[in-house]
Amino acid sequence: MDITTIGGVVCAFGLILLGQALEGGNVMSIVQATAALIIFGGTAGAVMVAFPKKQFVMGMKMVRLAFVNQEADMGALARQIVEFASVARRDGVLALEGKLADVQDPFLRRALQFVVDGVDAEVTRSTLDAAIEADFEEHAVGAKVWESAGGFAPTIGILGAVLGLIHVMENLNDPTKLGSGIATAFVATVYGVGSANLLFLPFASKIKVKLAAEKERQTLIAEGVLSIQEGLNPRVLEEKLRAYTREEPSGGGETEKKAA
Amino acid sequence: MDITTIGGVVCAFGLILLGQALEGGNVMSIVQATAALIIFGGTAGAVMVAFPKKQFVMGMKMVRLAFVNQEADMGALARQIVEFASVARRDGVLALEGKLADVQDPFLRRALQFVVDGVDAEVTRSTLDAAIEADFEEHAVGAKVWESAGGFAPTIGILGAVLGLIHVMENLNDPTKLGSGIATAFVATVYGVGSANLLFLPFASKIKVKLAAEKERQTLIAEGVLSIQEGLNPRVLEEKLRAYTREEPSGGGETEKKAA
Amino acid sequence: MDITTIGGVVCAFGLILLGQALEGGNVMSIVQATAALIIFGGTAGAVMVAFPKKQFVMGMKMVRLAFVNQEADMGALARQIVEFASVARRDGVLALEGKLADVQDPFLRRALQFVVDGVDAEVTRSTLDAAIEADFEEHAVGAKVWESAGGFAPTIGILGAVLGLIHVMENLNDPTKLGSGIATAFVATVYGVGSANLLFLPFASKIKVKLAAEKERQTLIAEGVLSIQEGLNPRVLEEKLRAYTREEPSGGGETEKKAA
Amino acid sequence: MDITTIGGVVCAFGLILLGQALEGGNVMSIVQATAALIIFGGTAGAVMVAFPKKQFVMGMKMVRLAFVNQEADMGALARQIVEFASVARRDGVLALEGKLADVQDPFLRRALQFVVDGVDAEVTRSTLDAAIEADFEEHAVGAKVWESAGGFAPTIGILGAVLGLIHVMENLNDPTKLGSGIATAFVATVYGVGSANLLFLPFASKIKVKLAAEKERQTLIAEGVLSIQEGLNPRVLEEKLRAYTREEPSGGGETEKKAA
Amino acid sequence: MDITTIGGVVCAFGLILLGQALEGGNVMSIVQATAALIIFGGTAGAVMVAFPKKQFVMGMKMVRLAFVNQEADMGALARQIVEFASVARRDGVLALEGKLADVQDPFLRRALQFVVDGVDAEVTRSTLDAAIEADFEEHAVGAKVWESAGGFAPTIGILGAVLGLIHVMENLNDPTKLGSGIATAFVATVYGVGSANLLFLPFASKIKVKLAAEKERQTLIAEGVLSIQEGLNPRVLEEKLRAYTREEPSGGGETEKKAA
Repeated sequence: MDITTIGGVVCAFGLILLGQALEGGNVMSIVQATAALIIFGGTAGAVMVAFPKKQFVMGMKMVRLAFVNQEADMGALARQIVEFASVARRDGVLALEGKLADVQDPFLRRALQFVVDGVDAEVTRSTLDAAIEADFEEHAVGAKVWESAGGFAPTIGILGAVLGLIHVMENLNDPTKLGSGIATAFVATVYGVGSANLLFLPFASKIKVKLAAEKERQTLIAEGVLSIQEGLNPRVLEEKLRAYTREEPSGGGETEKKAA
Repeated sequence: MDITTIGGVVCAFGLILLGQALEGGNVMSIVQATAALIIFGGTAGAVMVAFPKKQFVMGMKMVRLAFVNQEADMGALARQIVEFASVARRDGVLALEGKLADVQDPFLRRALQFVVDGVDAEVTRSTLDAAIEADFEEHAVGAKVWESAGGFAPTIGILGAVLGLIHVMENLNDPTKLGSGIATAFVATVYGVGSANLLFLPFASKIKVKLAAEKERQTLIAEGVLSIQEGLNPRVLEEKLRAYTREEPSGGGETEKKAA
Repeated sequence: MDITTIGGVVCAFGLILLGQALEGGNVMSIVQATAALIIFGGTAGAVMVAFPKKQFVMGMKMVRLAFVNQEADMGALARQIVEFASVARRDGVLALEGKLADVQDPFLRRALQFVVDGVDAEVTRSTLDAAIEADFEEHAVGAKVWESAGGFAPTIGILGAVLGLIHVMENLNDPTKLGSGIATAFVATVYGVGSANLLFLPFASKIKVKLAAEKERQTLIAEGVLSIQEGLNPRVLEEKLRAYTREEPSGGGETEKKAA
Repeated sequence: MDITTIGGVVCAFGLILLGQALEGGNVMSIVQATAALIIFGGTAGAVMVAFPKKQFVMGMKMVRLAFVNQEADMGALARQIVEFASVARRDGVLALEGKLADVQDPFLRRALQFVVDGVDAEVTRSTLDAAIEADFEEHAVGAKVWESAGGFAPTIGILGAVLGLIHVMENLNDPTKLGSGIATAFVATVYGVGSANLLFLPFASKIKVKLAAEKERQTLIAEGVLSIQEGLNPRVLEEKLRAYTREEPSGGGETEKKAA
Repeated sequence: MDITTIGGVVCAFGLILLGQALEGGNVMSIVQATAALIIFGGTAGAVMVAFPKKQFVMGMKMVRLAFVNQEADMGALARQIVEFASVARRDGVLALEGKLADVQDPFLRRALQFVVDGVDAEVTRSTLDAAIEADFEEHAVGAKVWESAGGFAPTIGILGAVLGLIHVMENLNDPTKLGSGIATAFVATVYGVGSANLLFLPFASKIKVKLAAEKERQTLIAEGVLSIQEGLNPRVLEEKLRAYTREEPSGGGETEKKAA
């Protein structure tokens, strides 16, 4: 579970409703099925027009990504790759073939397979880069679906409010209904602005951050495996991968490293 | 038929009007010919000024793209190209000449013609890249026409509403007409915001997604054909094209592949 | 004459005013000299501060570009270049010298002069690219002047409306003037939003489209002339330039071409 | 003096105030010290938080750039460089050493010094490019300071107006003060929107245009000096620099040039 | 202490509240716990949903960066690197090993270690570049957290105001409470717009400026160390690093330099 997603939703809705209640407002006055129908129906429709079915469905499914916690252990991954580099340097790249069975990660296994198969370095690089980019682009559409929903919802909220106000204005001769009519109309704005800013746009942001982390993990793998192919010194490789792991050098700090 | 486009438009308009009806609003009160004249006439005029005739007409025609369903079978295309690569590797690139008659896709045929003609690889690449980019740029203007309409419509909606309010304000001495006057003025906003958010901007988005898919299809063809020209191993080519097809390797999953 | 520019302006203003008249509004009530003074004076001043004199004047002059129709015949241009390529291949590049007198287009003549003078290919490319880019950048400022006017006008329209409302509010004790005062104030918004969305921003858009077409024409020339210098096969060059002309191959369709 | 800056400010403020006066508004009613305190104090504070002291001060100083007129004579500069190229070609690059004393421009002198010192071409290029870029980036912050002020001012204007309206609303029971209270509150909006659109944003725009001109001047020098180092033919160099000077070729038009 | 951050916050809040007080407004009328609960609770929640826990916490911690003053002495750093270059040129790069103990800066020490270890120049460059970029990207998220807060706060402020207005409208029959109700509702807007424009967005801006300065410092180190590895002449290196230090050449001005 991603605690900031759950906690953030609870915090935002909880405190806003608490503030509303403390001010003496009736929470029930902002529960209104027709406004929900207009805003969420209109937004869903606009997003459906904006994206093909496959991407719309993927976007809906990818909201899951905002709620699960799946941080990769970049340090462990880098250590594993450095270890493969040591094996390859000592016993040749073919020695990696026996190790492939233990590799859990499909992308790492696929990348190592290239090395074992002796595929040309340039082809390996362009194929892995294209795969990373295509995987990222494909899933990034999921974030765009939510961003798009976050863009449509507030304007459709205004649309709903204006529709409500038109209704109010046509019955202006009965001033006793004026206030409650305007109040009802405004609920549409609350739904549109609220759903966009507390749910849709933050969902899009979190999905994008998680996709970027996955892209970086794959880039670490690609860089590492390409360095194995080039026969880079494992110690230099370790240093190179620190850009991704942001770990301090093993052996305890800069001073010792220098002495090594 | 693209069901999300049809379904999205029906869903958005249907649920918004249903919500409006459930709230007791009269749907007829938002049907207003003069507001439509102002918003759609003004928007059409602004878009006409903004684009040359050829592009304006193309944009109008390209709305068709939002409604048709023409997803390419990238997997079948990749398999066809891998098969050509096998033929070329076995029998030489000239052996492809006999296959050209069976190729339906004009872009694939054109690209293979370069290989058969023995055109220099660098010239082939730059010509195909330029053709893909030019084709994309030319059609992308169609999406821009709709994006531009989606940008102008809400502001012209506000223009219409302000014109209506000026009319109301000048007749303020008759307060019985105030409400219906404001209601009428607001309909312009509904038309501007609604058409932009439920039609124009989603159309632009869907057109762009479909053009991007076509561009990716052409890029797959270019990459594949250039790899045939380079004499790349068909198995490596298959692996390389997986970035575009996103298919699992043939032969059933990662485990078997490794064993192969 | 660019008929979409003229037609678009007539269509936008005509239909908006027609809609206004049909709704019973008096067109004269939105003719107001002081509002025009505030909006257009303020916008012109802001744009003058934003751009140097030379660029401001060029922007003003370039509005002409939105009204003239000067579409280049890319196909004829490509054919002419392919013909030059044939001459150069048959008789050497010096044979082009005799043809230069017939070349109307100054950019094409200038580019061919490089070839005839035997200037190094890399220098020719960088010089032509720099000339294309500099020409485009210089004129693109003209579009930016109008974009900038389209950005300032609506906010200065709001400024004008607020100034009008302040005036109204100070005389609130006489409620009979309230309506007409607010109506007058709102005219400033109409001028600001209207001029930006029906004139300034569409002008900027059309100027940009036409500059992009001219840039593409010059790029076609540069690509073609550089290919002549490299001694590219005229048939391959014809194929290459199709990215710019988007013409079907001569000889009637793909099938015949293959047979050739 | 940059006449469009002075003229633009006078034109914008003059015509807006004239329009206001002609409409019967009292100019004094929009002179209000507390609103100025809120808007300009708040904006200055926000900009101070947003930028370090060094950059804030530089931004303040650079407003001078919007008012001075310092257009470089690009043609004369190009002719000077072409002359140096002739000297270098005839007598060797060391012959330029004697000319350095006459060079006024520090950047040109610095660039020529590299040539005279026989520094490696690649090092010269990367050093000059880095110097141009660093100089531009450093000063561009000055434009960003004003852009940032232009972004904060209107929202702080709204903040001021809302603060004023709160004050008005709390005293709603005295309706005679309502109008003047709202008028006072609106002045904050006038200050925020006006200062941003008539001063801050146009200043930022003009500073950016002038920095771009200076960058282009330095790029002309760098291109020219690097061409001298490469020993490029002065006539070809002259042609190359025309991308920056946009001058017609000397000797009167295309026809004569061809004959040369 | 960063005096513009402290001074800017004090200046903005002080002058706005002073202006408010001078206008006769009661400062206490904009102190309202429930509005703060809604705006800051809602904004914090939205930001928590938008970012993973690690990045949210880092963003919160990085606000410290806006308040501390840690300008690097780029000139001293450049002189130190030029000195190392002289040592390396005179005595070989291994002579730098003895100097490493005195190097305070971990990034400079790390970079020099590559030179001393004789790592390949291309590997050194790509590793240092990746490290600089990764470090910048990682911390830039801190600025994005505040930018995101600055984006959510005003819309949640509008949400709070609309919730307040709904409450007011439902009790419209008691007009004596109307004014104070609207005033209360507007405080939510003040909190949202104020916190975004006086705190969150300026914080994000200042954090970004400081991160860019740190990135430039690291780039200076990388450029310098790579030049040492290439054996660049220390005098040319000094000239090259002036792009980063923006110092005048030592020895007092251009004239003397020329004479040297």
